Amino acid sequence: MKKIFIPIFLLISVLQSNAEDGYQLWLRYQPVQNKTRLLSYQTNIRQVVCYGNTPTLVKAREELMKGLDGMLGINTKFSKAETNISGTLIIGTTATAPGLIKLSDAELATAGAEGFLILSKQLNGKKTTIITANSDIGVLYGVFHFLRLLQTEQSIEQLKIVSAPRIKLRLLNHWDNLNRTVERGYAGFSIWNWHTLPGYIDQRYIDYARANASIGINGTVLTNVNANATFLTKPYLEKVKALADVFRPFGIKVYLTARFSAPIEIGRLKTADPLNAEVQQWWKNKIDEIYSLIPDFGGFTVKANSEGQPGPQDYNRTHADGANMLADAIAPHKGIIMWRAFVYSHEVPDDRHKQAYNDFVLLDGTFRNNVMVQVKNGAIDFMPREPFHPLFGAMPKTPLLMEFQVTQEYLGQATQLAYLAPLFKECLDSDTYGNGKGTTVAKVIDGSADNHALNGMAGVSNIGSDINWTGHPFAQANWYALGRLSWDYNLSAEKIADEWLRMSFTNDAVFVKDARKMMLSSREILVDYMNPLGLHHIMATGHHYGPGPWVSNLSRPEWNPTYYHKADSMGIGFNRTPTGSNALSQYKPDAAKAWADASTIDEKYLLWFHHVAWNQPMKSGRTLWDELCYKYNSGVDSVRWMQQTWSKQKDKIDAQRFEQISMLLKIQEQEAVWWRNACLLYFQTFSKMLIPANYEKPDRSLEYYRGLSFPNAPGN
Amino acid sequence: MKKIFIPIFLLISVLQSNAEDGYQLWLRYQPVQNKTRLLSYQTNIRQVVCYGNTPTLVKAREELMKGLDGMLGINTKFSKAETNISGTLIIGTTATAPGLIKLSDAELATAGAEGFLILSKQLNGKKTTIITANSDIGVLYGVFHFLRLLQTEQSIEQLKIVSAPRIKLRLLNHWDNLNRTVERGYAGFSIWNWHTLPGYIDQRYIDYARANASIGINGTVLTNVNANATFLTKPYLEKVKALADVFRPFGIKVYLTARFSAPIEIGRLKTADPLNAEVQQWWKNKIDEIYSLIPDFGGFTVKANSEGQPGPQDYNRTHADGANMLADAIAPHKGIIMWRAFVYSHEVPDDRHKQAYNDFVLLDGTFRNNVMVQVKNGAIDFMPREPFHPLFGAMPKTPLLMEFQVTQEYLGQATQLAYLAPLFKECLDSDTYGNGKGTTVAKVIDGSADNHALNGMAGVSNIGSDINWTGHPFAQANWYALGRLSWDYNLSAEKIADEWLRMSFTNDAVFVKDARKMMLSSREILVDYMNPLGLHHIMATGHHYGPGPWVSNLSRPEWNPTYYHKADSMGIGFNRTPTGSNALSQYKPDAAKAWADASTIDEKYLLWFHHVAWNQPMKSGRTLWDELCYKYNSGVDSVRWMQQTWSKQKDKIDAQRFEQISMLLKIQEQEAVWWRNACLLYFQTFSKMLIPANYEKPDRSLEYYRGLSFPNAPGN
Repeated sequence: MKKIFIPIFLLISVLQSNAEDGYQLWLRYQPVQNKTRLLSYQTNIRQVVCYGNTPTLVKAREELMKGLDGMLGINTKFSKAETNISGTLIIGTTATAPGLIKLSDAELATAGAEGFLILSKQLNGKKTTIITANSDIGVLYGVFHFLRLLQTEQSIEQLKIVSAPRIKLRLLNHWDNLNRTVERGYAGFSIWNWHTLPGYIDQRYIDYARANASIGINGTVLTNVNANATFLTKPYLEKVKALADVFRPFGIKVYLTARFSAPIEIGRLKTADPLNAEVQQWWKNKIDEIYSLIPDFGGFTVKANSEGQPGPQDYNRTHADGANMLADAIAPHKGIIMWRAFVYSHEVPDDRHKQAYNDFVLLDGTFRNNVMVQVKNGAIDFMPREPFHPLFGAMPKTPLLMEFQVTQEYLGQATQLAYLAPLFKECLDSDTYGNGKGTTVAKVIDGSADNHALNGMAGVSNIGSDINWTGHPFAQANWYALGRLSWDYNLSAEKIADEWLRMSFTNDAVFVKDARKMMLSSREILVDYMNPLGLHHIMATGHHYGPGPWVSNLSRPEWNPTYYHKADSMGIGFNRTPTGSNALSQYKPDAAKAWADASTIDEKYLLWFHHVAWNQPMKSGRTLWDELCYKYNSGVDSVRWMQQTWSKQKDKIDAQRFEQISMLLKIQEQEAVWWRNACLLYFQTFSKMLIPANYEKPDRSLEYYRGLSFPNAPGN
Repeated sequence: MKKIFIPIFLLISVLQSNAEDGYQLWLRYQPVQNKTRLLSYQTNIRQVVCYGNTPTLVKAREELMKGLDGMLGINTKFSKAETNISGTLIIGTTATAPGLIKLSDAELATAGAEGFLILSKQLNGKKTTIITANSDIGVLYGVFHFLRLLQTEQSIEQLKIVSAPRIKLRLLNHWDNLNRTVERGYAGFSIWNWHTLPGYIDQRYIDYARANASIGINGTVLTNVNANATFLTKPYLEKVKALADVFRPFGIKVYLTARFSAPIEIGRLKTADPLNAEVQQWWKNKIDEIYSLIPDFGGFTVKANSEGQPGPQDYNRTHADGANMLADAIAPHKGIIMWRAFVYSHEVPDDRHKQAYNDFVLLDGTFRNNVMVQVKNGAIDFMPREPFHPLFGAMPKTPLLMEFQVTQEYLGQATQLAYLAPLFKECLDSDTYGNGKGTTVAKVIDGSADNHALNGMAGVSNIGSDINWTGHPFAQANWYALGRLSWDYNLSAEKIADEWLRMSFTNDAVFVKDARKMMLSSREILVDYMNPLGLHHIMATGHHYGPGPWVSNLSRPEWNPTYYHKADSMGIGFNRTPTGSNALSQYKPDAAKAWADASTIDEKYLLWFHHVAWNQPMKSGRTLWDELCYKYNSGVDSVRWMQQTWSKQKDKIDAQRFEQISMLLKIQEQEAVWWRNACLLYFQTFSKMLIPANYEKPDRSLEYYRGLSFPNAPGN
C-alpha cells in the first residue's frame, strides 16, 4: 500500500462511518480509553519478539501487530531478537524459544497440548511478558487471550495465567446447503461460496478462522446434516480442501457430513448396507481420497434414520453398525465419527422425549473408540427451556458430544435478543447423577466422569452472509459464548457477557452494566412471553417463526404443538410421570425426583412433566391460568424494560448499531405481544377463564393470529 | 458518539484494515493526495452554507459533510448564513436561496427539473462556489457532482457547469424474489430482507440510495419480472412503503412488477382478462391501495405472455389491451406502465430474433400515453455482442424504454471482468435510420427522435448481498456506468472508467492508465474467447455458466445453442438474410445494408447474420475456421495480458482488493481456456479441420467438457 497523507480528524470520521458495521465482531482493537491502563500497556510492550515462523506462529504475530497497532497508539517494534530493554513481550513455543523461556515441567504440563501460559517475568533484570505454549496453536490462543486483556482494559502488570481447554473438540456445525441456503439460518445465506471456491478465497474465510481461533473453536462441520452427497464428490472436496488450507494455521480442522446413502447416490452401488463389503470398500476409498487432499481432515457428522434421512436401520442394522463401519474406514487416518442421537419415529407410539434414549442406551459399549454420539442438550429440540437430555449420564461407555444450537431457531430467530450462555450453562451445570451426585452434564461432556479421552462440544452455527455475520448484533455473543464455554465451561455467563460487551462495544462502565443486565435477563424474558412454565414446541409450523399452539394437522403427531401442550378443558401440560409417558424414568432417580411431584417441582419445568388443572394454585398463590397470564405479560413488560434500558445508551456507542438494536427491540416488543396474545387467546378457549383485568387485553382476535402466514420466513 | 482519543497512525491501520472491503463503492472520500489540489480545495471551501431543510437538502448537506471530512483534512465549517469570507460554498435551490444566487432564466432553464449548476463567482468580492438547481434533487445531484470533482482531483477554481439528465427515467430493475434469491444474481442474495421489513431498516438501504443518487438513478423496480403476486398483498406493500420512505429523499421512486394473473391469485377472481370489468376494478382498487401507502409510487414493470408468464393473450387480448388496462387504473395517480417486449413463443416457427418485432410493431400507436414498451438492447437476450433491437426506430408512436442487463448473465457472471459501458454505448450509438440518418438508438430512447416526453433507460441490477455489493469488484463499474450513461449517454466509456477507477481505487496515474486499458478491452476480450465473429447464445443450459454449444435437447428449439450457431459440415452461423430467416428485413434498409453482405459485413457480426463456409477466407486472409481458432486463442492470451497488467498494481492499491482481483483474473483465465477448448473441440467435429500448430492444444477431451455439470451454479 502506498504511503498516504491522512490528517487525524478525518480518520476519526472514517472510523465512525465504517468501523461499526459489525463485521469485525469482538476483534475491533479500538484505542484503549483508560489512560492509566494505556500507559501501563505502552510501558510493558515497548517491543515484541516472536520466535518461530510456522504458519500458525506467523498468524499469532500478525494478530498481535493488528491488535497492538489498533489499541496502543504507539508504533510497537517487532524485533527478531531481544534487545535488552524493559518492556519486552516474547511469544513463541517452548520449543522455538527454549533458551529464554524457562518453565517448570508442572507449568508446561498444565498447559497441555493446546493451552498457554502468560507470565510477567524479570529477564536480565528487565520487565518481560511471555506468551508461550507447548504448541504453535497454544501460542496463538495465548495471543488472543492477551489481546483480550487489553481489549477489556485489564491489568497486565503481574500476569501468571495458565489456561488449557477443558474440552478437546470445540466445534461449530454449519447447517449449510449446496445452494447457500442455511437450514435454520437467520443471518442471510451461507458464507461458503461453493461456486467460486477453490479459486477464490473470500476474506470472510480468513476472518471466520480468526474469530473462531480467538475463542478456541478448533473444528468446523461445513455442511448441513441434511445435505446431499454431492459434497463428497471430487470437485467439492477440492473446494473443501481450499477452506481447510485457510483454516489450518488457525488450528481449525474441517469436518463434513456423511450422507449414509452416498454409496448409492454418488457411488452407483445398489445398497448402502453398512455390512456390505462393497459399501465398506467404497467408504474406505472415499475417505482415503479425502485424506489425500486434506491430511488433517477431522471426520464426519452423521444424521441417520432421523426425519427421513437414510441410515443403517433401512437395512435392519443398528446405529452402531452404521457408525462403526464409517469408524473403521476412517480410523487409519485418525478421524472420528460423530453420530447424532437425534432420532425419533412416528411409527413409535411412545413420547418423542423418550425415543433417542430408547434407541441408544442399549448400544452403549458397542461403538468403536473413534465414535462419539452427538446428543442435543435436551430430548425434544432446542427449546427456549428444556431439561437436560436423559442420555447424559446414561451411556458411560460412549463419549457423548454435546450439541447446542447457537442459531435461534426457537428463540426469536433474526429479530430477538436472547443471550444463550445461561441456557448452555443451565444444561452443563445440571446433575445427571450418572456416577452419583456431582456427575454434571459438563463432566459427562468433558470426559472426566467416565474417563473418555475423546470429548467435545458442538454448536449449530448462527453465522451467515450478513455483513455482521449473525444478523442480530447481540447474536454474535452466542457464537462467542459457545467458544468460551467450550474452552472453560466454568466461566460464568456474566463474565462472558462482560468480555463480549467490552470488546464489541465499549468499556464504558454504565453501558457494560446496563447491557450486561439485558443480556443476562434476555433468555428468561423470552421464555416468559413464549414458553413459560415448561410449555414447549408451540411454535408455528415449519419455519417455527411465531406462535402456533393451535396446530394439530401435521402428518406426524409429534410435529404438532397440540401434542406437546395437551391443553384441554381440565388443564394443560405433558404428563411425563409414571401416570403418563414416564419419560421421567429415563433419568436417574435422584435427578428425576426433583421433577416428579407437581407440587414441589421448580415451576419453570412444571408443564414439561405434568398436566396441571387450570385452577391449580401456584407457589405465587395465583391459579395456573392466572400465572400463565402473569408470565406472558411479565415477558412483554420486560421487553419494554429492555427497550428503555437500551434507549439510554445512545451516547455510549456508535449510531449505526444503536439504531439497529433499537429497531430490533421494537420488533421484539411487537413479537412478544403477538406471542402473548395468540397463546393466551388460544389457551383461553380451553381454560374458559378471564385474563385478569390488570393486564393489557389482546387487541386482535384469535382468528387473526391463526390466519397469519409467513411462507417466506427464513431458515426453513 | 463519545469523544475518543485516537492517535493518527493507528487510524491508518484501521483505514487499511476496514476501508477496502468494497462496501463504500465509489463513495470512499479518501484524503486528496495531490497537494496542490488539496490546497486549492481547502482555500475554496473554508465554509459551507446550506439553504433549506427539506429531507433531500438535508441529505445533500450530510453527504457534503461526509465527503469534505473525508477528503480535505480540515474541519470544514457548516454555517447557517454567510459570513463574508473568501472561500464559501453555497448550496441551495433557487427558491431557498433566492437573494444570493442570481442566475439568468436561460441558465435555470438549462438545468431543468433535475439538473444543476455549479458556478465559481465573486460575491461581495469574495470567492464563492455555488451549487444550485431548480429542485431539491437537483441540488443533491450537484453536490455529488462537486464531490466527484474532488474525488477525481479536478480543478474547482473556475467552475461553470450546467448539467441536466438527457433521460427522464433512469432505472434499476431488480430480479429479486420473495425468498431472496436473485434471478441472474451473482453477488450473493437479494439486499431486500423482506422478513425484517418494515420494522428493520438495514443500513444498506440507505447506502443503496446514496450510491444511486450519486449517479442519477431515480427509480428502482424492486421485484423480479417473474415474481409472484404476493408482493402485491398488504403485508408486502407495507414493506415496500418502508423502502420508498428511505429512498424518497434521494429522489428515487419505487416501482413493482405486476403479475398479470394477480387478480386470480390474490384477488380470488376467476379471470385476469383485461377487458373484464371486475378485473379492471380489482387493479384500480389495488393501485389505489398502493398509492395510499406510497403517494409517489412509480408504476409497474410487466412481463406478460413471455417464457410462461400469464398475460392478456391468455384471453385472446393484445399486449396493448393488457397494458392499457393497467395504464388506465394507474393514470389518475400519474403512474406508468413499463410493458416488456421480450416475448417469443415456441409455437411460432419463425426466428426468435423476429418475434418481438412481429408482435409489437403492429401495436404502435395503440398504447395509452402512460405506457412505455421496454425493449432489451438486442433481439435475442443480452449477448456479449448483439446488434441493436429492430424495434428501436420502428415504433415512433410509442416511447421505448431501453433495457440493458448490468448483471453479467452471459458475460462471465461472478468471476469475470467485463466492463459494459462499451457494450451499452455500441447499442446507443447505433443508427436505426428510424427518421433517417442519425436516428441513433440513444435519440429514440431519450424521446428526441419522436418527441416523447416520457423516456427512460433501465438496467437489470447486478447488486446483491455480498459485502462489496456486486461480487466482482469491477462489476461495480457497470452499475456506475449504467447511471452515468442514463444521465448523459454522450459520456465516453473511457471517461466513465476513468472517473470510476479514481473514485474506487486511486488517482495514481499509472494505475488509472493500466486499469482503464484493461476495462476498455475487457468486453472485447470476453467476446473473443466466448462468442467471436457473431456467435451467440452458446452458453450452457439454464444457468448459462460456461460453454454449451453442443446442447440440442431442450424442449423449445430456440433454447438450444445449436439453434443459434447452426454448425454443420459446410459451415457455421445463422442465416438471417433473405435466403434465411430474413430478420434483416426488420431493420431499416440503410441499417440492414451494412450487414447484408457476408463479404463486406463487419466480421464481429458475421455469424449473427450469415452461415459461412469453414474455408471461407476472412479479411485477415485466414479461413473462417482459422479465424475462429485465432479469436478464441487471442481472447485467452488477452486475459493473460490482463493478469500481467494487474500484477503490476500491487503497490498502488490496498492488499485486499488487489488479491481479490488477482484470484478472479486467474479464474477468468481458466474459464477462458475452458471456453476456447470446449468450443473449438466441438466446432471441429463439424469443420474437420486442424487447430493451427501455433496455438495451445486443448488438454482435455470434448467429452470431458460435455460432462461438466454445475447444478448449483448461482442465479438460476
